[in-house]
Amino acid sequence: MPYCGYFNGVIEPVDQIGVGVTDLGLLRGYGLFDYFLTYGGKPFQWDLYWARFQRSAERMNLPLPLTKEQTYPILLDLLARSGEPNVAFRFVMTGGYAPDSISIGTPNLLILSEPIHPVPAWQYERGIRVILNEYVRENAEIKTTDYKRVMLLSGAIQAAGAQDVLYQKDGEISELSRSNIFLVMGNKLVTPSRNILYGITRRTILDLAKADFQIEERPVLLSDLYEADEVFTTSSNKKVLPIVQIDEFQIGDGQVGAVSKQLLARFRAFAGTL
Amino acid sequence: MPYCGYFNGVIEPVDQIGVGVTDLGLLRGYGLFDYFLTYGGKPFQWDLYWARFQRSAERMNLPLPLTKEQTYPILLDLLARSGEPNVAFRFVMTGGYAPDSISIGTPNLLILSEPIHPVPAWQYERGIRVILNEYVRENAEIKTTDYKRVMLLSGAIQAAGAQDVLYQKDGEISELSRSNIFLVMGNKLVTPSRNILYGITRRTILDLAKADFQIEERPVLLSDLYEADEVFTTSSNKKVLPIVQIDEFQIGDGQVGAVSKQLLARFRAFAGTL
Repeated sequence: MPYCGYFNGVIEPVDQIGVGVTDLGLLRGYGLFDYFLTYGGKPFQWDLYWARFQRSAERMNLPLPLTKEQTYPILLDLLARSGEPNVAFRFVMTGGYAPDSISIGTPNLLILSEPIHPVPAWQYERGIRVILNEYVRENAEIKTTDYKRVMLLSGAIQAAGAQDVLYQKDGEISELSRSNIFLVMGNKLVTPSRNILYGITRRTILDLAKADFQIEERPVLLSDLYEADEVFTTSSNKKVLPIVQIDEFQIGDGQVGAVSKQLLARFRAFAGTL
Repeated sequence: MPYCGYFNGVIEPVDQIGVGVTDLGLLRGYGLFDYFLTYGGKPFQWDLYWARFQRSAERMNLPLPLTKEQTYPILLDLLARSGEPNVAFRFVMTGGYAPDSISIGTPNLLILSEPIHPVPAWQYERGIRVILNEYVRENAEIKTTDYKRVMLLSGAIQAAGAQDVLYQKDGEISELSRSNIFLVMGNKLVTPSRNILYGITRRTILDLAKADFQIEERPVLLSDLYEADEVFTTSSNKKVLPIVQIDEFQIGDGQVGAVSKQLLARFRAFAGTL
């Protein structure tokens, strides 16, 4: 069965949905999105994802055309139509159609069901490499559609044999292109507190870890990386993914560490119990 | 007759074109555009606009699907179908359709014909007001689709009784949201040299003025505004539009100045002779 999407009240196969050319997401980059998975046939952490989407929409001055209660059955419908046990959901909301190409109108809301693209197993076993880039996402706390930077860097990432980019600005690190970063320092878990998208998986890991680890949410410097035993990144799709090299700098002994493995197992168990 | 658009090889009425939902302009803000008018039924400064579009495409790693020679007849076709003596053309090119929602593919190219929205006459007679905002456009020299900032500021602009925003960063001014800025200081024309989109109208005004004015393309500070007799902004659509107030600061005597009027007349004469 096809992956379907909801667009302004109509559900159709994703490849049949057409967005008009005066859409402000397309013309002016005025769009926000969110992304999450189902586990066991249920939208994972729906309350948290909806709350974040709602906050992003408020910050972008876009009224939500659907309530949370109206949206949930649409998710279940899209999942059922896919014929798959689990899917990913992508929400995209833009400034709507603008005859003058600039004035915000009634938002366009897309809810797409998509196949899940699991991170390759070797990345969990051996860890990933990232390059450093001097940058801080504009309005990082809003999940906008602006990903030009990482896409412009895709050649540099590939040339370095890396899988992603870690942004830093004036020596302070913030986040990877689409995920948060954690440093393990002995019994401490340290993660940047600003210039980031506040990830739902980031929050979940902090919650799952707080009984056993000392948590520090604070500005994190590049120099902190020298003292890290392990580094990992978190996102809906990556879960807890170890980082073993940053540019030429090897983290710890260059191997995936015990804490990263343990927190990944904890996250999987938590998601599996839903 | 309807305004029509070209989309990946097909010409249709603009309101019938549908862009698929995996388009990277829509999903990831990976898009660039350009915009210009016809005068006397001919695309104005076509060579310059094409060259800029080509440079933007190169900087975004997007191969152009059409040559300049293939594109020009499409413009004439769209103009003819409109039934209007003159139209505006909007080029939009994105990273194409991405099944994985992030990898750049074959670009999607849109060429839309649109009605011209002339600037209201009172703005030329009385000049416009702008607010200041601390910001510098990322990749300002590429004409990307990223206009979130000005759209987020639209309420503040309106509340101030202003028409646009002037960006400054650390006291250095760059550009308005969609146009360049000039300062008239006695017999000098001063305009920012960096962190700007290099406007075709900016270049044209510099060419039209260089016989009579001393030209300075250089970093321009907020403090330079205190010494300006006149300030104006330039763009394809605005041509030469006077600015009489910046936040609470009045430029000169607050009236539209003689140099602004003279350069507008010169630009109109130049466009009219084509």
